[in-house]
Amino acid sequence: MRKRIEKLKDELVKRGLDAFLAVQNTRYLAGTTAAKAVIVPTEGSPLLICSRLEFDQAKRESWIRDVRAFSGWKAPLRRGERVIFCKPWQLVANCMQELDAQAVGYDHARREFIRKLRAAYTASYRELPELMLKLRKIKSREEVSLLRRSAKIATKGMRCAAESIAVGRTELEVAAEAEREMRMAGSEGTSFPTIVASGRNSWLPHASATRKRLRRWELVVVDLGAIYNGYTSDMTRTFALSPTKKQFTLIGLVRRAQKAAIGRVRNGAKTSDVDKAAREIISRAGYAKFSPHGTGHGVGIEVHEPPGLAPDSKDILCEGMVITVEPGIYVPRLGGARWEDMIFIKARGTRILTSLEEI
Amino acid sequence: MRKRIEKLKDELVKRGLDAFLAVQNTRYLAGTTAAKAVIVPTEGSPLLICSRLEFDQAKRESWIRDVRAFSGWKAPLRRGERVIFCKPWQLVANCMQELDAQAVGYDHARREFIRKLRAAYTASYRELPELMLKLRKIKSREEVSLLRRSAKIATKGMRCAAESIAVGRTELEVAAEAEREMRMAGSEGTSFPTIVASGRNSWLPHASATRKRLRRWELVVVDLGAIYNGYTSDMTRTFALSPTKKQFTLIGLVRRAQKAAIGRVRNGAKTSDVDKAAREIISRAGYAKFSPHGTGHGVGIEVHEPPGLAPDSKDILCEGMVITVEPGIYVPRLGGARWEDMIFIKARGTRILTSLEEI
Repeated sequence: MRKRIEKLKDELVKRGLDAFLAVQNTRYLAGTTAAKAVIVPTEGSPLLICSRLEFDQAKRESWIRDVRAFSGWKAPLRRGERVIFCKPWQLVANCMQELDAQAVGYDHARREFIRKLRAAYTASYRELPELMLKLRKIKSREEVSLLRRSAKIATKGMRCAAESIAVGRTELEVAAEAEREMRMAGSEGTSFPTIVASGRNSWLPHASATRKRLRRWELVVVDLGAIYNGYTSDMTRTFALSPTKKQFTLIGLVRRAQKAAIGRVRNGAKTSDVDKAAREIISRAGYAKFSPHGTGHGVGIEVHEPPGLAPDSKDILCEGMVITVEPGIYVPRLGGARWEDMIFIKARGTRILTSLEEI
Repeated sequence: MRKRIEKLKDELVKRGLDAFLAVQNTRYLAGTTAAKAVIVPTEGSPLLICSRLEFDQAKRESWIRDVRAFSGWKAPLRRGERVIFCKPWQLVANCMQELDAQAVGYDHARREFIRKLRAAYTASYRELPELMLKLRKIKSREEVSLLRRSAKIATKGMRCAAESIAVGRTELEVAAEAEREMRMAGSEGTSFPTIVASGRNSWLPHASATRKRLRRWELVVVDLGAIYNGYTSDMTRTFALSPTKKQFTLIGLVRRAQKAAIGRVRNGAKTSDVDKAAREIISRAGYAKFSPHGTGHGVGIEVHEPPGLAPDSKDILCEGMVITVEPGIYVPRLGGARWEDMIFIKARGTRILTSLEEI
């Protein structure tokens, strides 16, 4: 995590900034969910800002030693408890003053927060949401190992879903079983609301899981993800209950499209080319108008991060990125099908993190 | 949901605005998770903005009839599919132009988004995050019924957690069982990462659930919540495994503090008085410095909404609010204890939504 700070500092120097205020990327920089903000000066050690009730947790979980807690009201303190009785923006202003920061970047904050901060401590404040995303795009070895673990948990969840799917069960039941499996395997929760979309729900790409029962001649799209130590995963499979020939063909088609796209994934490839590879196969089969979304996205702390893999994407794939490849086809009345895996891009070659070949 | 729109329109007229752009409160206004934005003009019907892949879902789920979809790239369309090939801010700009809106309020959006929107369509744009929160503070009958259902699911989860707690089980296992129970009962997920905090984790108010095993002489704080049709719940109980006398006393104390605070909850009461009632009992027992957080908060679409119940709160409780009352005491080495219920405030009297008296 110290390396991230160093990289961030390099970026700050390049942009002529004295400090960075992270309000959204706190876990990435501090390694705890207890931080409300992290202040990274170009010189010196970072500061962790938290509320009084999260002070002990921040101290226990974060590698950052300088932890400063605020409380909106005065109250007696425990021995050794260091709390400043003020509003969060006042504490941030105090820290900026202490650092003598003239030019401050920040990832994202409410307009009102920045307005108050500026009134309390005059400096030039610049919103730079892209800066952290740029750093986060390339994963460290440690991050890849957490993502691999997260992907493994998702794979377990998918196997459980596969075993739970049967005519007469509800979408909700399948989701509940898969989620329990992931939780037991150490997931902090789901990286998004688990999708178990059968029949008429299967052709909605962003369906959830309902009380609807699974029936014969239906496609069932299962899209799920775990969170492991803050790192998300994302995986989709499409199952079929006594499918018609056309439904069976649809699944084969997304699988072929995915395979073709994965074939293009490599260090230096254009993201739009990966998308194109999948889209060409789908178009050739006559389903172009049924494929409304891009072919994938980056995965990390958030389940949707840059780079995007769509016809209008401008990104280049690089060593250290972890992305999904997930072509989807959604045909009203026939059904929807999507097939998604997470892929780690190495200097040479790739590695699929969500392998479940038996399904 | 039409009533909400009418109330919002009244607020717009009061503030001299022609339209409101909701980016965060989309589900509240549109009744679907598929909307990326909702535009409410002071005159005429609201518009729902979504991405192409969510068009069908928005049409199926929302009461808003005017659904407009965007797609960042050109692609063939299905018969009947209406999509505008542009960026989201371009579509919003087009709609504002069509409405001839001169003064536009919005709940929250990235600075960059508003900058682009302003460049595409000149108008006065004002960030008004408080406006929607003000409306959301008072719940309609329909909302209270959803919150009641959500609270009932949380109660089921808590009962399941109570049954799962035993020496030797992990915090994670207890969380997994409780979450599965809530999911099976129709929850969309958890309203926050379930807390099962035992022993040394119990005195961290915002702990999560880890692989740590439950042991004797430990307090176990379980804090969980469901989501039902978008409405969250929040409930805490503290369990004890062969507690010491002091630990037992601690639980009794938070329960008494909670009872005293609930005794003050009524239409017209000051939120700070409710907090004070709990704090006085805790202080008298000599634990003032171990009670670092406020006594409660509003619950609705978000699990933490206004009003806050803390020493520095200025709110007045009103008919139609749903709040939590949750005093907590966290004593290093001894253990943490918190007791939380959801309460609906009626014109006369209150109703506890998370009743589980047998635990």
